Formats: sequence, C-alpha cells, structure tokens
Amino acid sequence: MNIALDVMGGDHGPGEIIAGAIEAAQTYKITVSLVGPPDIIRSELAKHATATAGLRLPIVPASQVIEMGEKPAAAVRAKQDSSIVVASRMVRNGEAQGFVTAGNTGGALAAGIFQVGRIEGILRPALITPFPTHRGFCVILDVGANADVKPEHLQQFAIMGSVYARHVMGVNNPRVRILSNGEEEGKGNQLVISAYNLLAATPGINFQGNVESKEIVEGMADVVVTDGFTGNVFVKTAEATAKLLQRVMLEELTAGPISSVGAFLAQAALRRLRTRMDDSQYGGAVLLGLAGMVVVAHGRSKANAIRHAIRVAKQGAEQNIQAKIQEGVAESAPRASRLGDSAMKAVPT
Amino acid sequence: MNIALDVMGGDHGPGEIIAGAIEAAQTYKITVSLVGPPDIIRSELAKHATATAGLRLPIVPASQVIEMGEKPAAAVRAKQDSSIVVASRMVRNGEAQGFVTAGNTGGALAAGIFQVGRIEGILRPALITPFPTHRGFCVILDVGANADVKPEHLQQFAIMGSVYARHVMGVNNPRVRILSNGEEEGKGNQLVISAYNLLAATPGINFQGNVESKEIVEGMADVVVTDGFTGNVFVKTAEATAKLLQRVMLEELTAGPISSVGAFLAQAALRRLRTRMDDSQYGGAVLLGLAGMVVVAHGRSKANAIRHAIRVAKQGAEQNIQAKIQEGVAESAPRASRLGDSAMKAVPT
Repeated sequence: MNIALDVMGGDHGPGEIIAGAIEAAQTYKITVSLVGPPDIIRSELAKHATATAGLRLPIVPASQVIEMGEKPAAAVRAKQDSSIVVASRMVRNGEAQGFVTAGNTGGALAAGIFQVGRIEGILRPALITPFPTHRGFCVILDVGANADVKPEHLQQFAIMGSVYARHVMGVNNPRVRILSNGEEEGKGNQLVISAYNLLAATPGINFQGNVESKEIVEGMADVVVTDGFTGNVFVKTAEATAKLLQRVMLEELTAGPISSVGAFLAQAALRRLRTRMDDSQYGGAVLLGLAGMVVVAHGRSKANAIRHAIRVAKQGAEQNIQAKIQEGVAESAPRASRLGDSAMKAVPT
Repeated sequence: MNIALDVMGGDHGPGEIIAGAIEAAQTYKITVSLVGPPDIIRSELAKHATATAGLRLPIVPASQVIEMGEKPAAAVRAKQDSSIVVASRMVRNGEAQGFVTAGNTGGALAAGIFQVGRIEGILRPALITPFPTHRGFCVILDVGANADVKPEHLQQFAIMGSVYARHVMGVNNPRVRILSNGEEEGKGNQLVISAYNLLAATPGINFQGNVESKEIVEGMADVVVTDGFTGNVFVKTAEATAKLLQRVMLEELTAGPISSVGAFLAQAALRRLRTRMDDSQYGGAVLLGLAGMVVVAHGRSKANAIRHAIRVAKQGAEQNIQAKIQEGVAESAPRASRLGDSAMKAVPT
C-alpha cells in the first residue's frame, strides 16, 4: 500500500505534513510517498531521524506548487511538475493507491478528475465531507465539486455515500436522505422531487426520504445527498454560524459582573466544544468516484489530521471502495452510463 | 390605515395576538381589524377593557381556521371563511392595507397569492426575512415561496429587497449580494452566474456581487438574494446550528468542576444572546410583490412581536412600497412583464 502525499499544501507548511506522514507510516505500516521539493523534504525528515528509521517514506521530486489564488484547472494544466499533479499521476499510473493533499481544493479536484480519472459508470465525482451532529458525525455530498446536477447524479451520490459511510465511517446500513426545504415527500425544488423518486427506487441503499437541517443536526441521517451548490452553502453556513455563536457567547460570558470567572469557564467550554466538533480524525473531504482515493485534508490540518487523511486513503483502497462503487452503480443505475455526461463540467475553472 | 389581523394563528393563542393588536392600535394610532370568531375576540378584548377605550379595533367575523397540518393551497380554496382568507380578502377589496398572521406560512402564501394578487410586472412574490449578523440584521429573500426560479426572478427579488431594506429597515443605499458558493465573479451555479450579470446591469440597486455565508454573518450585505430553496436551507441551517451550539455550550459550561457557577453564567449569557439575536422587533417575514402588505409573523410571536409585525405592515403601506416596487421593476426590468410567467407556481401545495 502506497499513499502519495502532497507535502506543499496546508497552512502550517511541510513540517506538519511530513510529521503526519511519519505518524501514518509508523501506525499503519504503509508506504507514504512524500511528493515535493527533495531538499525541503530531506531537511524535515532529518528532524525526525530516529523516528523514521525503518519507515517507508520515499521522496518523489516535484518542483512546482499550485498556490491558493490560482485558477485550479489552468494551474493543473500548466504546472505539470507541481506536487499535486505529480501525486495524482502516481495514482493514475498505479504507483500509488491514493493521494492526499491539504492544498487548494479546486486544484485537488482538477488534478483528481483530469489525472486520476473516473470509475467506469460514474457520471460526476463528488466531494464528501464529515459533518458534526449532536450524536457524532454524518457525511454529506456533494459539497462543492458540481454546482449543477441532475437527479441521476444525486442517485450516484447516494450510492457512493452509502459505500463510503459503510466502509470508511463504519456505519452499518447507513440512512440516506436528501437535503430539502421540508421533510415530507413532495417538498423540494424540481431536482429534489425528481431525485426522491429515483432514490426510492434504487436498490442497495437505505433511503429514508427528505431531511431538513435541524434533523441533520439531530443525527437523523448518515448520508446527506445534495447538489454541490446547496451542499457548499450548507456546510459554510453551519460553520459560519458556529463561529459567530462561539464569538458572541464568549463576549456575553465575559460581559457580566464576574467576567473573569466567565472567561475561564468559557475558554474551557469552548475547548471541549471544539474537541467534540473536531472532524480532523475523519480525515477531511474525499473526492469520490475516481479510480483512486483522493483525499483533501483541511488547509488547517496538523500532523494528526494528516495521519487520519492518510488512513482514510488507505482504508478506502483496502476496502476497494472503487470496485464497490462501480458495482453499486452498475446494479442500481444501469441507465446512468448512457447519459453521455462529462465529468469535465465538474472541474472548477 | 387599517391592518387586518388573523387572531387565530400562532403558538400562544388569540390572547397574545389580541394583546399585540391593542399595543399596535395604541402606539401607532391605526385601525387593527381583528379577524376571527367574534366570541373569542370579545372575551379577549374584555380582559383589556380600560386599555381599549377609544382604540379602533373592529371585529371581523371568520368562523374557520387553517390548521398547521393542512395542505395550504387546498385549505385556502376550501375554507373561504377562515380567518386568513377573510383577512386577505379585505386587502384585495381595499378595506385593509395589509394583513398579518402568525399562522401556517404556506396558508399565508397561498392566501396572499390567490386573494391579494400580484403587483403589475411582478413575476413571483418572494418571502423576505430579517437575518441576524454580528453587526445587526440583513434581509434575505426568497426564503421559501419559490423553490425553482430564473435569473429574472432574482433580479426582481433584488429590486424588491432594496425597496424593503430602504423603506422598512431604514438602510440607506442597501448593499445587494447574491448568495453563492464563492465570493468571486464566476462562482455559483448556472442560476447565480446568469443572475450576476443581470444584477450588475440593473439600474437603481447597489449590487456588490456574490456573498458567502461567513460574510453575511459578518454583516457584509444588507440584502441577500437567492432562490427559495437555497434561502430556506440557509436560514434553517443557521437556526439549527445556533440552537445546537447553545445546547452544547450549556452542556459544556455545566460539565466542569464549578458547574453551578457555569450554569448561572451560561443562563445569563444565553439570555443576552437571545436578546441580541431576537428578530421579533423586525416583524417576521413579508411576502413581497403583492398588491398589499402580507406579513407572516413567527408562530412563537408574543404580543410585542405581533405589534412589530403590524408596524411593518403599516410602514410598508405608508411608504407605498407596492408602488415603489412597481416603479423599480418597470424601470429596471422592462423585459420582465413579457416573460408570461405565472405566480401560481409559487403557491405551496
């Protein structure tokens, strides 16, 4: 098992990324290929000389980096020796079973779609991410790979999400629901209403109907299916609201007459809250539907989050979720491959 | 000025609704027509005998009620003597300048669209609601009247939202933005991308481009324009996340070693937080684009919220926002009235 790791992505620089690679190689006894400028990688590895003895951490040279501000598709085309393109090429060539990056999400999508390629029968790869609920985590897809989709795409998202929830999140018979503006059948926009009927008739998934935000938060779904526009707005709205509330709670707790006690308690509570809501152990977002595992870790990932992202790539590859997705799609949606749709529409410009 | 009030809607019963009517008649020196079963209204009014002396609070009989579980469009058609239908008929007949209800939102939309009728040139009425930000409140529309819309509809929403923000919320030169999955021009689904260009070319509005959830929360927009599906998901996600966070914060604050102090501070902080986020003074949602003011107060409205809902109806009517919307639409979108679209699509079934 070899997972290619883009050492140049992320807010904390190659140090944290490489520390995560060492943890992963140690914990999971796998090869982690370190893709990036060899001198940077060597100097980071030197800091962990004892820890790395006997680990499989080959260096794969890549001289370029795709920056956060670049147009993803153009950058992936232009920078053929960028760490993310080199890593994705290893997956395409079968040299690695997956790649992990904490860099530019758009770049990861473009590299995944252009370089790794789709699973046969998959119309559109989709970005899946864990989402915190009061009881734990569900997964939601698509959260940004496809702004406009058809009901058939949502059907495939439901199949891919079920495979992922089962084999990577460890959920038995995952409950699949469509994000809508009302729980009842018949609620939704045209897309949701059409997809509802399609999902209800799809074998192999545990479809439970529509879901509203408040039930997602209560943990009423394991897999939430939506288009990439609504899904993106959904996760960003939840994140923005949570951040605002934490800030306002802190302001209010430190506004009273015993503000120092309030501040002390608030800090402790917020710390516990963040641990509870922390999704770093879930390894970030995954671009599902490609011929290899493509894991997009948060830009803010530290070593521990990188280790888990590598674990997700390894686990998906071991469980052969690509084959399971292909089977699920072939079984459930024989019409899908005849739509003649192009995955290229999904690439961010 | 006469505002018709459905006394039968709301979670707290006719008592709170009628108390709100008395406050409004007193404060704003207007007529508030109390629509509902006369015996119930008389017995509530009797409790405020002194306060109501000299106020204009005529009773308008209505024998039926649309319940929360009913199919709105069918119920509005079937129950011609329901309080909401009688109230909306008063607006259509020019006997009242607006109506206010704290009942079934779908029923209010159906009654508004069927009974009150659209402003000339308006393709689709839209539901607008105040949304709390770190700095105050913005307004967002559509939050549920139209699940599927065209760019031309979003253009009209921008015009209606600007008129509302200016004349009801008191915002000078309101900044209009489209809710999207990225701030940059070119981000969004097909609807957003097309609407972006249309809004950029629309005279009379202060269009500032796309907006993401985190900037809305920061107060970067005064009017947020979106389709009714995404808008509905947006407000419900923010509400569900805020509720979850408050619950989890309370759990965490009372989990530590000095849990009684934590509980005390948390209760006080949560109370202040709710006051800060309280939108009751903004009078609830308004169905814009109709020939009279249609205000849908929260089901949980108490007397004070009902008073503000009545104020919004009065203010909109006084400012003649119907005429201003009509002018805005005629000036900005001369093509709109030629689309031949039907408002009936907006009616919830």
